[in-house]
Amino acid sequence: MKFEVTILGSSSATPIFHRNPTSQILNINDKLLMIDCGEGTQQQMLRYGIKYHKIDHIFISHLHGDHFFGLVGLISSMHLNGRTKPLYLYAPAEIKEILEIQFKHSGTQLKFPIEYHFTQTNEAEIILDNNGFTVQTFVLNHRIPCTGFIFREKERLRKINKALTEELNVPQQYFQLLKKGIDFIDEAGVRHKAKDLTFEPDVPRAYAYCSDTLADGSYNVHLENVDTLYHESTFMHDMADRAKETFHSTAREAAELAKSQHVKKLLIGHFSARYRDLSPLLLEAREIFPNTFLAQEGETFLI
Amino acid sequence: MKFEVTILGSSSATPIFHRNPTSQILNINDKLLMIDCGEGTQQQMLRYGIKYHKIDHIFISHLHGDHFFGLVGLISSMHLNGRTKPLYLYAPAEIKEILEIQFKHSGTQLKFPIEYHFTQTNEAEIILDNNGFTVQTFVLNHRIPCTGFIFREKERLRKINKALTEELNVPQQYFQLLKKGIDFIDEAGVRHKAKDLTFEPDVPRAYAYCSDTLADGSYNVHLENVDTLYHESTFMHDMADRAKETFHSTAREAAELAKSQHVKKLLIGHFSARYRDLSPLLLEAREIFPNTFLAQEGETFLI
Repeated sequence: MKFEVTILGSSSATPIFHRNPTSQILNINDKLLMIDCGEGTQQQMLRYGIKYHKIDHIFISHLHGDHFFGLVGLISSMHLNGRTKPLYLYAPAEIKEILEIQFKHSGTQLKFPIEYHFTQTNEAEIILDNNGFTVQTFVLNHRIPCTGFIFREKERLRKINKALTEELNVPQQYFQLLKKGIDFIDEAGVRHKAKDLTFEPDVPRAYAYCSDTLADGSYNVHLENVDTLYHESTFMHDMADRAKETFHSTAREAAELAKSQHVKKLLIGHFSARYRDLSPLLLEAREIFPNTFLAQEGETFLI
Repeated sequence: MKFEVTILGSSSATPIFHRNPTSQILNINDKLLMIDCGEGTQQQMLRYGIKYHKIDHIFISHLHGDHFFGLVGLISSMHLNGRTKPLYLYAPAEIKEILEIQFKHSGTQLKFPIEYHFTQTNEAEIILDNNGFTVQTFVLNHRIPCTGFIFREKERLRKINKALTEELNVPQQYFQLLKKGIDFIDEAGVRHKAKDLTFEPDVPRAYAYCSDTLADGSYNVHLENVDTLYHESTFMHDMADRAKETFHSTAREAAELAKSQHVKKLLIGHFSARYRDLSPLLLEAREIFPNTFLAQEGETFLI
């Protein structure tokens, strides 16, 4: 199953040319989910060929402008492009007032409903649970209420061993049972173990998105069994004091967290505009956690 | 005196790659004034090297998103860049609520004041009058209240004829009087006419910005004595019905207006996303008004 993330923006609040404020597109089996939506996100979507109508779910971590100023424009464009199906929006409750006041004063009556799911910022919760995956929030520690998100594949079915099932003439209507681990008993009454007629399913994968936060350890527990971790790394560690003061993290802190929680891959982003060249941030993280990558505009990472 | 306009965005509401929603920078003697501020305007400023701190006045024609969604981000960036001097904002009154609600929910306390001047949309008015120029609004006819703006240089002083004043040994302290047209009487009591000792001043120039509007003739009277006219041209004239329906104009209508009001130069913009190639719009306008140009991203036009 496809499970990958494409980066639309990597900058923190102060803008810098060639970097855009935060937004990511998660592709789970060709369902597109958007995480955060800084100003200019819709232009980035045009740049990287991401279609508006493929997005049904948008997750906003918190209400600092570099994470949501592009939302009202994106929703307006969905409207102008004739969308009628609902848009599911997971965000702090105040987003509703912010959007509605702008639609009101611009005389816009959306042709599709926005289904709001207000994120709780005092406890972790499952906010989406469908056939293929779940999404849960967890609490981060920033200057205003802020949540992280974990996107987790569900347990998968076992995979049919085609050669063996053909050899034994297993009728196709039994395949779903076999996939679920139920043994097959043939006409002669012989039991064939599902385990023997199938392969182990793919291990479910998880992607964690840690938006703006002080790396204070409070949320580490949620990052167990995560495959790919995105963690903000606004500063290098020589600016750890500034990071603390602004409730942000350093590249080293992100790497230490990735290492302690045994994730497989670390993506760092939300870079301060002071860093024109990002390689020192990457090197700082890789010293501690070698499988680190820069979450830069246009890059796609498999989870 | 420098008097020129740089285009930051030329698209109408539906986004299209390589075009940005409306924004323009007017440079009057190195004072920068911004007209409209669609999403992504601050990225366009970075692209074309326009400094935030040089902008003290922003004019918003109306509250459709493609004309103001970039404003909250730009103001946030001014704040993050340490601005303390006031920002003068000329816009429909509802802009205040829109901005304040976003600053409130993002926990932003601006370090500089915004001085609001709410535009009246039922009559023309002078909204700015300083040493060098005036700005006036006039009423356009769009789906929601919308104003155009005219930026007009003030009458200039006469210019000293250096060769002649040196020959006659006119003391420098008389130059200001000469510039104002006051004759010089020398020590022998001989009157030297200011008109002879000076050259005619430059004729004051004017730039008119016609944002989204039906070309219904109602505002034409304001466009007399305008040198450069920017007029929206969302559609070609074969879509005149659609233009009327949406309270927009066609390239031909913009050109007819430029011709009837005897302006010197016409800039057309606010192009519908349906036109990838803009040359047909230009040709349509030039058939009627040859001195027409496409107001495209990055272009600078002398007024």
